[in-house]
Amino acid sequence: MMDGDGEPKPWQWDERTWRAKVDKVRAGRSLLPKQWKNGARCAVALSFDSDHETGELRYGGKSHGKLSQGQYGARSGIGRILKLLDRYAVPASFFQPAVSAMLHPQEVKSVVAAGHEIALHSWIHEFNSTLGYEPERDLNLRAADVLEKIAGRRPVGVRTASWDFSPHTLAIIREMGLLYDSSLMADDDPYELLEDGKPTGVVELPVEWIRDDAIYFNMDRLASLRPYTAPEAVFDIFRRELDVAYEEGGLYVLTMHPHVIGHRSRIWIVEEIIRHAKAMPGIWFATHADIAAYCAQECGLKR
Amino acid sequence: MMDGDGEPKPWQWDERTWRAKVDKVRAGRSLLPKQWKNGARCAVALSFDSDHETGELRYGGKSHGKLSQGQYGARSGIGRILKLLDRYAVPASFFQPAVSAMLHPQEVKSVVAAGHEIALHSWIHEFNSTLGYEPERDLNLRAADVLEKIAGRRPVGVRTASWDFSPHTLAIIREMGLLYDSSLMADDDPYELLEDGKPTGVVELPVEWIRDDAIYFNMDRLASLRPYTAPEAVFDIFRRELDVAYEEGGLYVLTMHPHVIGHRSRIWIVEEIIRHAKAMPGIWFATHADIAAYCAQECGLKR
Amino acid sequence: MMDGDGEPKPWQWDERTWRAKVDKVRAGRSLLPKQWKNGARCAVALSFDSDHETGELRYGGKSHGKLSQGQYGARSGIGRILKLLDRYAVPASFFQPAVSAMLHPQEVKSVVAAGHEIALHSWIHEFNSTLGYEPERDLNLRAADVLEKIAGRRPVGVRTASWDFSPHTLAIIREMGLLYDSSLMADDDPYELLEDGKPTGVVELPVEWIRDDAIYFNMDRLASLRPYTAPEAVFDIFRRELDVAYEEGGLYVLTMHPHVIGHRSRIWIVEEIIRHAKAMPGIWFATHADIAAYCAQECGLKR
Amino acid sequence: MMDGDGEPKPWQWDERTWRAKVDKVRAGRSLLPKQWKNGARCAVALSFDSDHETGELRYGGKSHGKLSQGQYGARSGIGRILKLLDRYAVPASFFQPAVSAMLHPQEVKSVVAAGHEIALHSWIHEFNSTLGYEPERDLNLRAADVLEKIAGRRPVGVRTASWDFSPHTLAIIREMGLLYDSSLMADDDPYELLEDGKPTGVVELPVEWIRDDAIYFNMDRLASLRPYTAPEAVFDIFRRELDVAYEEGGLYVLTMHPHVIGHRSRIWIVEEIIRHAKAMPGIWFATHADIAAYCAQECGLKR
Repeated sequence: MMDGDGEPKPWQWDERTWRAKVDKVRAGRSLLPKQWKNGARCAVALSFDSDHETGELRYGGKSHGKLSQGQYGARSGIGRILKLLDRYAVPASFFQPAVSAMLHPQEVKSVVAAGHEIALHSWIHEFNSTLGYEPERDLNLRAADVLEKIAGRRPVGVRTASWDFSPHTLAIIREMGLLYDSSLMADDDPYELLEDGKPTGVVELPVEWIRDDAIYFNMDRLASLRPYTAPEAVFDIFRRELDVAYEEGGLYVLTMHPHVIGHRSRIWIVEEIIRHAKAMPGIWFATHADIAAYCAQECGLKR
Repeated sequence: MMDGDGEPKPWQWDERTWRAKVDKVRAGRSLLPKQWKNGARCAVALSFDSDHETGELRYGGKSHGKLSQGQYGARSGIGRILKLLDRYAVPASFFQPAVSAMLHPQEVKSVVAAGHEIALHSWIHEFNSTLGYEPERDLNLRAADVLEKIAGRRPVGVRTASWDFSPHTLAIIREMGLLYDSSLMADDDPYELLEDGKPTGVVELPVEWIRDDAIYFNMDRLASLRPYTAPEAVFDIFRRELDVAYEEGGLYVLTMHPHVIGHRSRIWIVEEIIRHAKAMPGIWFATHADIAAYCAQECGLKR
Repeated sequence: MMDGDGEPKPWQWDERTWRAKVDKVRAGRSLLPKQWKNGARCAVALSFDSDHETGELRYGGKSHGKLSQGQYGARSGIGRILKLLDRYAVPASFFQPAVSAMLHPQEVKSVVAAGHEIALHSWIHEFNSTLGYEPERDLNLRAADVLEKIAGRRPVGVRTASWDFSPHTLAIIREMGLLYDSSLMADDDPYELLEDGKPTGVVELPVEWIRDDAIYFNMDRLASLRPYTAPEAVFDIFRRELDVAYEEGGLYVLTMHPHVIGHRSRIWIVEEIIRHAKAMPGIWFATHADIAAYCAQECGLKR
Repeated sequence: MMDGDGEPKPWQWDERTWRAKVDKVRAGRSLLPKQWKNGARCAVALSFDSDHETGELRYGGKSHGKLSQGQYGARSGIGRILKLLDRYAVPASFFQPAVSAMLHPQEVKSVVAAGHEIALHSWIHEFNSTLGYEPERDLNLRAADVLEKIAGRRPVGVRTASWDFSPHTLAIIREMGLLYDSSLMADDDPYELLEDGKPTGVVELPVEWIRDDAIYFNMDRLASLRPYTAPEAVFDIFRRELDVAYEEGGLYVLTMHPHVIGHRSRIWIVEEIIRHAKAMPGIWFATHADIAAYCAQECGLKR
């Protein structure tokens, strides 16, 4: 039952093999509370991955054009975003690679000063699954130190860069005592992560490419990626996700990037989503940290 | 008439060669009945390929993110779909890989209990054309056993995974005595499959990528695939296909996936298609099995 | 001025080199007549490339799914197209590979009987630029023989498969005494082809991917191609091209494929384009052959 | 801290390494003037990259189809553009590779005669980052000589081909004494370029793929690029960028290509953008050269 290279093919695996793969990291019980804070009907968690120059640095940092595209996030995008969040008094979570935070410490301080959350998002936007346990652990610990030093508080949650959740990520999250992860996609609503079938006490606030600005707008000359989707269509998708989250009494997590959504032709999407949410009674706008803590408490999560 | 590697190029083939390739598996006589059951004008066959985690397992199952995306189908998508079908009292067909059924046996039982069809869809979403006759036959027989055991009845039809119809698939279908296949695209309406020019007694209920949710919405970070098409545009395409099927008195087959269409921003497409169909007099909603059996009977198919 | 492999790079070429490349095959004088036939203001040349199964055969013909997709063109697409052209009494040109004509001789006869043009479109949809002079010449001569035998008249024009115009194509066109080519893109309106800077007496009826259905609707699972563009958007593009052709008094060439545009959700685009054109006074619907002959005559082309 | 090939990976770099990469070429102080010329509120800089045949020549010039697509820019596109700019009395900047200028000297003279700017855009659309310092310098100097000879004045600004800004580009710009570059993306508004952290006196008029016609409309059969975006959506994006530039009192740079935007179904986008801008009080339409000079003067740039 093996082929030339000695590895059984997936259709040759025994049941134990594929069950182990599925069970390694998996969604467990729902952590959707009966109602949201203060009786709210729906929780809205806006998030911004402040990658800036690290999006290019992780590939070697040779393209001055791509580095300038990244700098745009810090120079133009963040300002528009913070102004908008302030105007509507909406808290949000900013996931920032350590190198990005070191390049833009004043930005980090402004984000915190405005009442938002700063959370872990790798060292230099590296892909976890290429690293091995030791380097991934080391980079995450150092990144937490950097964010704590600049932001003045230690991060309590993580979003893996490119949502690249390695076989070691969950162990490292537990070791670091983090409250939540926001990188996986098994549900719309919060759930507890299982490791090899066992509860971990870690809250997952699930993401989805559907609710990510970059996939519609990315441009990579060498990879055939183009921003083909009309901004109106992106808004329509984000709005529909929100409307059904509201109907279901669920969680709405939106992932955006200052160098993507911060552009003049796109920032209106965030504003219209906020206005749309504000027009519905019973929306709780909160950071990922506050939502995860609330879910953990309401659902009696053992940590 | 040969090039360096000893293989004649297509423009060097003699007529016998290209005719044999075309005739190997081909559309034969139409099996479109004069009218549909109870005098209906148009038959609507909704189908869902419940791949769940197998979409990633077939590639090795290394990405926890993709496995979670697949689990979404079972955890969130199926529930929304079954609720919708129940609300409108519409039967549908669910094509499910055996491994997916073993991971989610309760789902299979719920689908059957609600009056829907469970049909063959590979072992672990493997590509047939990479297998050879023996493994493809073995995997299909074992998959039929698994579905029969969990669902309580043996499947009568098949949809190949990724519509990858191998040179051996038709022989295996005949050997298994299946009533129908739903993987090929030579017509909109049902037809009899020919093998090497001879009738087989197998009903084809043709599919098309046009009427498949995944091609518009798929996201593969490494393959430059993005969900660029607006949901409104996908609905428009699906609706237009239905309108002309109705005009022509034909068959309307829609292929969807719980982990794709089951999302909050997309499930409305199924609902609106159902409502649109319900608003036209003379629609017969039926499973693939019922439609294939009706066509076979009305057109006097010899099996 | 050479690099490692002995070939000068484009930025190292002398002027003679790049001028020779540009001049090899090039647009010469305009063949846009002062007015169109019977004083018409705009000429509309609808064309259909009836590739059918050859789209897959040219790559080896191994995929039964893709062969069935091609057969759809002959089995379902052509019927809808001929019915539509008949209803509006619009002539069109059908470019058909010889192998496709041999697979569907009745289709060719029906097309001719309805007053449409059959023209050259390769042997089996091979790429000319991979062939060399002798095989390209041989395949074109044999294809002309096949079309003449089935259609009852010898083709007077050619469209290269995939618009792959090789360094030998123009010489072969002249040798065969063809009236026109329809594969190049240097203008919207007809022009005379130059070879190495000299007039050839060959009419070019230019195409463009913009006015080709396949690029918006193609689906190739392995090539990251998806039918991302909404049919409404494709119609909008085709209509805008027509409107300005009308304003300018020019030529409007549309390239379509029975297995692409012949689908239930797309055939309306052709109908609406025809209706839109019919609503404007002074449209001359004609075959490519008739338009090329008219341009050659009005502009005193020496052949 | 090194891997097999002896090169430290980005996540292994020390701080000095990644800071040096980021600082090599970077956005410095803003050069946005307090108000635009004559008290205008917003500056609109339309630009056209007149690549024509060089888009294919740079890859070797083997495809006659692609060369004809390029020729379209010179033969059909430029005429529509100049007519439009003339009708609305709007100046613009034309960035033209030297080889393109030599192929179309009359076009260059017409552009200059109509009051527009001709600026540097490589020799033959070569990628700078593949060249090395000497060849890049040589090609730029020769290109400036060619443009000066044909246009009658020496260019004062540059846009790198494909916005491929090499590690040597900034040094060459300074050596040539150019006033501005328009290839980088760190802001929407003008800024001074820094080299290794030090001011250079060079004005950057930033571009973005978002405001480039080609990315939405490009077609490359081999690269999975297709013109998937609807023209209406492209207009919507361009208009939104303009509206917010106006709100912010900023700069609006649009990059277009005669062989892309010059088509019948797309040229209306330029017209509608101009009309939209003209309908807002206080728009200064100007060439890149005039805008760069104004910014340099108003902000006291030391050159």
